[in-house]
Amino acid sequence: MVPFEAPEALEKRLGVRFHLRLGANESLFGPSPAAIEAMRERAATSFHYGDPQSYELRHALAERFGIRADNVCVASGIDELLSLATRLFVAPGEFVVTSVGTYPTFDFAALGAGADVRKAPYRNDAPDVEALAEEARHCKARLVYLANPDNPTGALLGALEVARLREALPHDCVLLLDEAYSDFAPVGTLPKISGGDPGVLRLRTFSKAYGMAGARIGYVIAHDSHIRELDKIRLHFGVNAVAQAGALASLSDDRHLNHVVAETSKGRRRLREVALTCGFETLPSATNFVAIDFGTREKAEAVLNSLLQKGVFVRKPSAPPLDRLVRITIGRSEDLDLFEEIFPTVL
Amino acid sequence: MVPFEAPEALEKRLGVRFHLRLGANESLFGPSPAAIEAMRERAATSFHYGDPQSYELRHALAERFGIRADNVCVASGIDELLSLATRLFVAPGEFVVTSVGTYPTFDFAALGAGADVRKAPYRNDAPDVEALAEEARHCKARLVYLANPDNPTGALLGALEVARLREALPHDCVLLLDEAYSDFAPVGTLPKISGGDPGVLRLRTFSKAYGMAGARIGYVIAHDSHIRELDKIRLHFGVNAVAQAGALASLSDDRHLNHVVAETSKGRRRLREVALTCGFETLPSATNFVAIDFGTREKAEAVLNSLLQKGVFVRKPSAPPLDRLVRITIGRSEDLDLFEEIFPTVL
Repeated sequence: MVPFEAPEALEKRLGVRFHLRLGANESLFGPSPAAIEAMRERAATSFHYGDPQSYELRHALAERFGIRADNVCVASGIDELLSLATRLFVAPGEFVVTSVGTYPTFDFAALGAGADVRKAPYRNDAPDVEALAEEARHCKARLVYLANPDNPTGALLGALEVARLREALPHDCVLLLDEAYSDFAPVGTLPKISGGDPGVLRLRTFSKAYGMAGARIGYVIAHDSHIRELDKIRLHFGVNAVAQAGALASLSDDRHLNHVVAETSKGRRRLREVALTCGFETLPSATNFVAIDFGTREKAEAVLNSLLQKGVFVRKPSAPPLDRLVRITIGRSEDLDLFEEIFPTVL
Repeated sequence: MVPFEAPEALEKRLGVRFHLRLGANESLFGPSPAAIEAMRERAATSFHYGDPQSYELRHALAERFGIRADNVCVASGIDELLSLATRLFVAPGEFVVTSVGTYPTFDFAALGAGADVRKAPYRNDAPDVEALAEEARHCKARLVYLANPDNPTGALLGALEVARLREALPHDCVLLLDEAYSDFAPVGTLPKISGGDPGVLRLRTFSKAYGMAGARIGYVIAHDSHIRELDKIRLHFGVNAVAQAGALASLSDDRHLNHVVAETSKGRRRLREVALTCGFETLPSATNFVAIDFGTREKAEAVLNSLLQKGVFVRKPSAPPLDRLVRITIGRSEDLDLFEEIFPTVL
């Protein structure tokens, strides 16, 4: 099953060539120059397998977050971790809970593990912690999935709300926190990092703020007992060496990260103004994208299709009530210039 | 579970630093210069996701083998394909068959899918097609695994023998042919490539002769009905973009491939002479490694440990009767010079 049609496939199907990719929340700011250099170097020695234990990277992450390397497992992106986590925690026929319309790859992973997927609706265009907890208690769920900040809305739940969800879950239910966009969230808003709680898995990635989506590398922070179990079922030599080198170098370049986060924050304000000028509201976002609200599914689909035809790759949620949104990735100012030029012509 | 201890972990455990890596059948000849250049370039744009359908690479492979792109699925190496294939073909409690002492990652994948793993013994230090077929019929296996050329012995079964195995299997049993070392086999010895037989999956990789082990990329050639099923369960965006670019460029550089294969062939003869000079036989090999026969497990372990202590990373099989072997990767002539110098000192 295919959670997302790739821009390459879409180009072939529509017979267009995308000159602006604002549809997959890739970072148009690129990876850190230090990461590019490290990856270029490791590409030349890629005849050597990468370290299957990602020793250096796990230790660098542990130091960054004040935890132990035993609390970190590295994998080929969050998608792989969703698959590993569902296989680890859910037996066929058991239940998991997610939100209607949130990042869909969790559903595919859960279905692949034989899980029964239950869904809670959004409230005010954000995941509803009470509805999630209620559904989890009702079906005795083994896993609850929460993307925070959320994709595709951009909504942020604060540390207190996440703690409330965690505490309201059945005692043997694990909270799977997909924090792909965490680097864009205002400092201090997310739950404090700790490796001590067996009830929460925190999934993070180098694909978004670190600009390494094509390199495929992410990690999970969790209780060491979970990390040991993940180590038993993950592909031992699965994480590529080039990505490991790039990720490690990225962690030593906070200047680039801070630049990306600051420019993204400016870009969000600018995109909101562009939308408002044309008469459309946007949803608040703590990510590197902004969802523009077109009021109806029909209008949103018309705008999406026109943008695609004009060579601008964007995506939209398909599940009501989010189907009235079109999601735009924040690019560099030159990318936003181009978007600002094209957007009014498709309305 | 960990099929192989990594050289990085071994270095830490033993307190040594390896200056010669001849233990993981990595290609010390490196990737093609064209592949390195392509990977270096793609590293800089690795903020873009790779094409989840590997469109260009699948089409290049299809052209190379005279099949259709619908007969090819790309993944992050053969290990991932072993995991996908076992999940696709084997339900928990069903049987699979492999050989005692062959490449162990199949066993881990099969156990992970809940399979019951049965094993046939080697005959004359090679997989025994009759024993495999008999065991498969006996337990009504869903999958039979055969590494050909074999790892860790280097043995090659010809096309006729593979066809004999294929025909002797139950009609609903699929032959999983791990052809990681196929590029080193003499031309014309392996079964002809075709996408038309639903009874065989052929797994191939860029990790060995193409020298891209750390990049993580491999593929399977199979009937299009199997490819469609694999597409449903694989990680959609899992194959990294850098590896895709490198693999594609590799395919256009047959000169490098031919050079690696020719040098490896010379190196096998040389390594055999080195062993014979010291009084030890070697097994015939159609791969980029040679297994030296030390007669007993104790002797082989003593040699292995001495080589490790001297900074030479090698591995040995642990299952009898192969436990009397130490497996040495064929490197460049300068690597073999070094090995030739050190080897007599550890005997």
